[in-house]
Amino acid sequence: MSAAYTIGIDIGGTKVAGGVVDAEGAIIARARVDTPHRSTSPEIVEGAIVGVVQDLLGQVDSEQVGAVGIGAAGFVDADRATVVFAPHLSWRHEPLREALHDRIGLPITVDNDANAAVWAEWRFGAGRGESHLIMVNLGTGIGGGIVIAGRVERGRHGLAGEFGHMQVVPDGLRCECGNRGCWEQYSSGNALVREAGALLAANSPVADDLRLRLGDDPSLLTGPLITEAARAGDRTAVELLTEVGQWLGVGIANLAAAFDPGMFVIGGGVSAAGELLLGPARETYRRQLTGRGYRPEASIVAAGLGNDAGVIGAADLARSGG
Amino acid sequence: MSAAYTIGIDIGGTKVAGGVVDAEGAIIARARVDTPHRSTSPEIVEGAIVGVVQDLLGQVDSEQVGAVGIGAAGFVDADRATVVFAPHLSWRHEPLREALHDRIGLPITVDNDANAAVWAEWRFGAGRGESHLIMVNLGTGIGGGIVIAGRVERGRHGLAGEFGHMQVVPDGLRCECGNRGCWEQYSSGNALVREAGALLAANSPVADDLRLRLGDDPSLLTGPLITEAARAGDRTAVELLTEVGQWLGVGIANLAAAFDPGMFVIGGGVSAAGELLLGPARETYRRQLTGRGYRPEASIVAAGLGNDAGVIGAADLARSGG
Repeated sequence: MSAAYTIGIDIGGTKVAGGVVDAEGAIIARARVDTPHRSTSPEIVEGAIVGVVQDLLGQVDSEQVGAVGIGAAGFVDADRATVVFAPHLSWRHEPLREALHDRIGLPITVDNDANAAVWAEWRFGAGRGESHLIMVNLGTGIGGGIVIAGRVERGRHGLAGEFGHMQVVPDGLRCECGNRGCWEQYSSGNALVREAGALLAANSPVADDLRLRLGDDPSLLTGPLITEAARAGDRTAVELLTEVGQWLGVGIANLAAAFDPGMFVIGGGVSAAGELLLGPARETYRRQLTGRGYRPEASIVAAGLGNDAGVIGAADLARSGG
Repeated sequence: MSAAYTIGIDIGGTKVAGGVVDAEGAIIARARVDTPHRSTSPEIVEGAIVGVVQDLLGQVDSEQVGAVGIGAAGFVDADRATVVFAPHLSWRHEPLREALHDRIGLPITVDNDANAAVWAEWRFGAGRGESHLIMVNLGTGIGGGIVIAGRVERGRHGLAGEFGHMQVVPDGLRCECGNRGCWEQYSSGNALVREAGALLAANSPVADDLRLRLGDDPSLLTGPLITEAARAGDRTAVELLTEVGQWLGVGIANLAAAFDPGMFVIGGGVSAAGELLLGPARETYRRQLTGRGYRPEASIVAAGLGNDAGVIGAADLARSGG
């Protein structure tokens, strides 16, 4: 592709974020629309995408933009056009590329958001040069992406990397995917907020600091607020992040047994907690890795591109194909 | 390689089996030595390998044999020379290729036994033509192998595919690898025999048929005996295989979430139970697969080459590199 720029769009459970990205992975223009949580119909999201793309095209020389890449928090078919299943968006067999085709006059590719993120981290971020890279994104749920030998590994039908829906607890907590005991029920932003909420509901005095931060508004209870409390030294918030981190380590040890990567990159909103999350994850991973002590161990590192990985990766996949 | 034949050696927990294999995957000569269970030192196994190779070379025109491929039930380093960790063989950092080099005057490659088996199934067996193939071998433990786009996926350090040591039960049964709750503690030949033994030890009347088959010799309790009882209609034996099959389905659903293969091939000794094992596995898999109903589902099929897959695959990997 000869165009200077491509547009990357990152669709999450609560927002559509976009950027104009150059060939070196730099974002030169940004736009963002918040969408209603959970009840997000395809039409609302499609309208938001079109709005973000138009906003972005207005910020740069639109002749220089060659394609639009979309990363969506769902199962994307191998055709890279259709979102077949999106637990957090309530989408089923949504032909996203077709729906957007007439409204955006540019080539469109659709990918899983974590595929976009792992591609960005491998091309421009923490995973550069790694032959076997796995990314685990802790956001609303868990997103997963795999790059092996410089290619996104998408599986037979485009659905590889759904690590969050591997069962870690038999008959465990019910998941939005319909199953029980999915990993993301124990290690994600949702898990963090759910456990904090349970502590508050139990009227436990250990939640007094969190209660104080919330004032009278329980809707303020979010992952970032808990992380902020932990950073400020609240022991309960630290414990909540520790627990999410330990479950992260359990799942990573499982993935290491199956994939044997050289590196795990941890991204997503919860990863903003840094070592409060990654420290317990590494400790549990090292205690749980099969063959530990007799094998090289994959490193566990924080993502390098933060929240921009999805946008940068979606744009670069539209450029390079990944 | 221009030689007509290569030798394949399959090292399991209780035997060293070998064959002379042609370029079409046909075994034209066979040899086998049984080894002591569990306490198998590297020296004993190495002696057995040399004996099997010499036996085989005596059966054919030895000038036509170009290389020896070894599949070992352990973690094999990316150098394809060293067994770094073998839970069922008590090996640690065993330089197998070096140890055998002077005693066998042929090029030697070492691989994980399940890598050999999945390669054989992809080249000559049930997995032919499948772009994303996963093999699960239920023997003493669980062996796993991956072929993607016509190549064995070995991971960064050669240790990919250790599916049996993914944790499926937190704080579950202790595994020979040192962890708790590993998949192979619930779905393997060992699991089958352990559960049957527990029923017998509990003096349960539901184990009367098994007790009758054993006479006065509890050492006769083996996976094949239980399978035979199930085939003959013993309800308890059917239930024991059903349980192992259901756990097989749980783990396969997890692997489908992570890898999204087109096919799972099930091999190893326990797979001789056929539909008594695969039926319950498919049922649980379909009930537990994330996104089920909205996605294509990988098929679950019996291995096509039976116990020969390890020998054929090891030989063909020595020929082709895989």
